[in-house]
Amino acid sequence: MADGSTERIVQGVRAWIAAAPAGAKLPSNRELMAEYGAGPVTVQKAMHALSGLGLVESRAGIGTFVRPARLPQPVDHRWQTAALGQPHTRLPLVPTSQRLAAPDAIGLHSGYPDPDLLPGPLVRAALIRAARSGPTLTRSPVRGLPDLQAWFAAGLAGTAPAGVTPPVSRDVTIVPGTQSGLSSVLRCVVGPGRALLVESPTYWGALLAAEQAGVTLVPVPGGPDGPDPETVREAFARTGARAFYAQPTYANPTGVQWSRERGQAVLEVVREFGAFLIEDDWAHDLAIDSDPGPLAAHDDSGHVIYLRSLTKSLSPALRIGAVIARGPVRDRIAADRGAEGLYVSSILQTATLDVLTRPGWRTHLRELRQGLRIRRDLLLRSLREHTPAAHLEQVPAGGIHLWVRLPDGIDPDRLARDCEARGLMVAPGPEWFPAEPTHPYLRLNYSAPGPDRFPEAAQILQAVIEG
Amino acid sequence: MADGSTERIVQGVRAWIAAAPAGAKLPSNRELMAEYGAGPVTVQKAMHALSGLGLVESRAGIGTFVRPARLPQPVDHRWQTAALGQPHTRLPLVPTSQRLAAPDAIGLHSGYPDPDLLPGPLVRAALIRAARSGPTLTRSPVRGLPDLQAWFAAGLAGTAPAGVTPPVSRDVTIVPGTQSGLSSVLRCVVGPGRALLVESPTYWGALLAAEQAGVTLVPVPGGPDGPDPETVREAFARTGARAFYAQPTYANPTGVQWSRERGQAVLEVVREFGAFLIEDDWAHDLAIDSDPGPLAAHDDSGHVIYLRSLTKSLSPALRIGAVIARGPVRDRIAADRGAEGLYVSSILQTATLDVLTRPGWRTHLRELRQGLRIRRDLLLRSLREHTPAAHLEQVPAGGIHLWVRLPDGIDPDRLARDCEARGLMVAPGPEWFPAEPTHPYLRLNYSAPGPDRFPEAAQILQAVIEG
Repeated sequence: MADGSTERIVQGVRAWIAAAPAGAKLPSNRELMAEYGAGPVTVQKAMHALSGLGLVESRAGIGTFVRPARLPQPVDHRWQTAALGQPHTRLPLVPTSQRLAAPDAIGLHSGYPDPDLLPGPLVRAALIRAARSGPTLTRSPVRGLPDLQAWFAAGLAGTAPAGVTPPVSRDVTIVPGTQSGLSSVLRCVVGPGRALLVESPTYWGALLAAEQAGVTLVPVPGGPDGPDPETVREAFARTGARAFYAQPTYANPTGVQWSRERGQAVLEVVREFGAFLIEDDWAHDLAIDSDPGPLAAHDDSGHVIYLRSLTKSLSPALRIGAVIARGPVRDRIAADRGAEGLYVSSILQTATLDVLTRPGWRTHLRELRQGLRIRRDLLLRSLREHTPAAHLEQVPAGGIHLWVRLPDGIDPDRLARDCEARGLMVAPGPEWFPAEPTHPYLRLNYSAPGPDRFPEAAQILQAVIEG
Repeated sequence: MADGSTERIVQGVRAWIAAAPAGAKLPSNRELMAEYGAGPVTVQKAMHALSGLGLVESRAGIGTFVRPARLPQPVDHRWQTAALGQPHTRLPLVPTSQRLAAPDAIGLHSGYPDPDLLPGPLVRAALIRAARSGPTLTRSPVRGLPDLQAWFAAGLAGTAPAGVTPPVSRDVTIVPGTQSGLSSVLRCVVGPGRALLVESPTYWGALLAAEQAGVTLVPVPGGPDGPDPETVREAFARTGARAFYAQPTYANPTGVQWSRERGQAVLEVVREFGAFLIEDDWAHDLAIDSDPGPLAAHDDSGHVIYLRSLTKSLSPALRIGAVIARGPVRDRIAADRGAEGLYVSSILQTATLDVLTRPGWRTHLRELRQGLRIRRDLLLRSLREHTPAAHLEQVPAGGIHLWVRLPDGIDPDRLARDCEARGLMVAPGPEWFPAEPTHPYLRLNYSAPGPDRFPEAAQILQAVIEG
């Protein structure tokens, strides 16, 4: 937010203000200069920042004062109840996996990796280069910067088998995170009141986007190699659905990777029903024991709409992803993105492309793979040693989560609250089910910060299950 | 995208590739080092970037080759017609004002200011600071970074009259551009099939967002001081609408600024019908001759939903705006943003707050005001001198556009095409009308690059009108 020294004064004076009465006079700039060993410009900058935040006000020739918080009048907003009516869906504001952990807690609840696993220096250097010589004052085209489109297209084309026509740059729409891409896809490919097949359990963000789009969910049970193609066929036939949302690679939360045969069989069913497979490749860069390729690489008939995320392997702060779609649906999605947000920050696109086209990116991906293996194995070992009450149906070959089955009769929501009271945050399974959960589950993030505390986490979990 | 020298090689080799047959062998790295006077690491980086873009492939021990563009098989996407059905709305992909101008053209069509008018050094410095010491690897809370929320709240609170309870940080939701905020507001405050009052003409982006949300538009004619409160009352009564979208300050495209009396009277009508005024304050920082404050500052009853943009005064590349809303509607909007995109880039938020809390920001706003005045007056003078056929109903006191009335019988779309053929890009008026245009209009952006060519633009316009 500011230079180090300015920031230090801002933080110091904020702490002072928090303890001061409204209207109190601040120490003079001269006094602050002495207290912080700073020059007049630095102190002035700090005062300016505090004033911009509405915390202080200066009166010419008198001094600077803590801005009196105006007494809030009791305002009445009840009239909005009639104007708004019932929401067509009650979206939860912050699901468990988006909550911030308390500073001392062990946070295995989130869906984001430890920053230690991410390429900090690459990201910082790329942002600095983008700031110095990139397009910082101009907008981007609606579909994105052409070179970044080309990178995403080349990535998918690179794994396409012979005989499949690969996608081109124009098939790529850059989105501010794949959640935005998914929202657009569900709006314009499915739409309100229409049916969408989903694996069950599946990513809560997809369930949220589906609720927002008003689509009707048709859950299909998952399996250790992917969903049963016959069940998928029956679901399409029964509901008239024209789309199936899935994560064939290291599905969130189960970690399941569809086998090649399952993938091809499901794709066949999708084609048979003239439908779309919405392939959410969220964990493309999170392989540990296997090297699966996206199903989309095997399709040039436009049946696969492909979502490619970088959030978990590059940085959650960059908010750049891609939707790759072929045929008329591509333009419908791009038009929806245009209406929704006009275009995506050209600064973030430039910095992202910079990282992706450097040799350091490949090095990072190798290190990430190794880091994920170590953490996954450590959490597995901790659970085996300390949490006999937890059962793991499958060791994931990639991704960042373990999907842990609890003894029947345990309420995962209550368990999560009890764990939190003991300093461990876990994500209760029900958030991933489009219907009532089949069994009690927890999701644990092994890429979370503080792997040295995994054994402690496993002990807490066992104690809470026993209690 | 890369260091200067790497980038130079990338560009050079791309030009070479463009002229080479597929499969051609590239000059060796040694030859490239000699040609560009660069070291081996630089050349390697360039090759890596080209490979990432899918343009070259290297074969071990042999060399690097132009990647053969695979022969595209004739794929068939016609099946999608049945799967997609008719779109509930046909969104145009690129409206005139979003088109890129040809390099030699005079581009008065766009809705963005000349980068010369924007605070380039401030933005670059803020981005570099954010890259060095900001949160580059972590996500932001759904509603935004607390300090940036506080800045937006303080900005609105600063103009609130005594007796009005000012908004607080929590009332602010940070959005990736106000278009995204508007999309959410229309989705959750109006919704499909429900009525929304709009001024006519009004911002095409709002019309686009309304189409996407499936709302039914109820146009209300604008006036030189704002819409007639009685007409607004009748429209509410007749349609049962619960929301009115408007730009009370320097409306796009007309430049109209609502008078204080009109604003208060419209707000009274809105309150009477238990409705929302969606105040799009897109031109907050673009004042020239007047100092209007937002209507939202006069409301603590939750009737005004306030959209605050920075795109035109800070940078179109930062994509940071805010929605300020009070009462339960605030949480419904924030939940919709969460479902749509989870959160906004913390890097962009940090850099934005950095610029906004520096003394240089105030200096920039003063300079911007002066720059806009000079350009507005220059374009006005050019039109008066060279375009007697154009009629201006009002000289705008702020904003960046002139709304020019053409002689009746002229087709503005055709006129815009004819102007473009002569090197002048203008935006035809119909894109701003929710229904058939009442008269032929053009919108001209006086903040566009190249003000020295305004007289030439005015001459071309006159010639095309006469022709």
